[in-house]
Amino acid sequence: MEQLNNTSSKEWFQKIKWNEQGLIPVIAQEIDSNDVLMMAWMNHDALLATLEKGQAVYWSRSRKKLWHKGEESGHFQNIRGVYLDCDGDTLLIKVEQVGGIACHTGTHSCFFSELNIARETSAWKKISTK
Amino acid sequence: MEQLNNTSSKEWFQKIKWNEQGLIPVIAQEIDSNDVLMMAWMNHDALLATLEKGQAVYWSRSRKKLWHKGEESGHFQNIRGVYLDCDGDTLLIKVEQVGGIACHTGTHSCFFSELNIARETSAWKKISTK
Repeated sequence: MEQLNNTSSKEWFQKIKWNEQGLIPVIAQEIDSNDVLMMAWMNHDALLATLEKGQAVYWSRSRKKLWHKGEESGHFQNIRGVYLDCDGDTLLIKVEQVGGIACHTGTHSCFFSELNIARETSAWKKISTK
Repeated sequence: MEQLNNTSSKEWFQKIKWNEQGLIPVIAQEIDSNDVLMMAWMNHDALLATLEKGQAVYWSRSRKKLWHKGEESGHFQNIRGVYLDCDGDTLLIKVEQVGGIACHTGTHSCFFSELNIARETSAWKKISTK
């Protein structure tokens, strides 16, 4: 935790506003296509691990532990840029998506359900995301 | 609330997983550039108002009321697509950003602070987002 304590005191780190659970939402966008791949969460340790490895490390809220994206699938996300929004409470990361697959369902992007916006008959339809 | 009650019973609406505050994070992406413009939150009413108006209506967590994006600035977001992620807890909307400005600071995107990922000297630097 030495490293975390050192980092926590730094000005850039203090600009980040963590929520009441100590988390911040992180949007992962593919660097070349600009496709939005997924949204996940990081805590302090996940962000530091991300910067340390140069690959996305999230906090898994369901498993309550650090989740090095791709550790099981091989679908790592190599970090190409890290951005903070105007009020400091959301991160955007631009990544090279190894294998082109971000979703655990095997699709390119997690946002593969599009709302058919017709009154009375609205429904989610599966689309190809690449 | 008649309309909300009707909608809440529909299958497409039940796929959405709201958090413990009844909110869902919403990523707004510009339709042509694919730029990620901002992240905000919707509750049931905000989503229904968004679909009704064809323009983004968020829930302002700070003001605790519906926020028709652009109502003061004129920078409305015309909805061109609505997408749900694989586990149903994040929305992505593709929008036509009126005026090309999404951020209340006057910038194109809210993600105008990029992390200079150099050890010891890390800092956020302001970048042009368009």
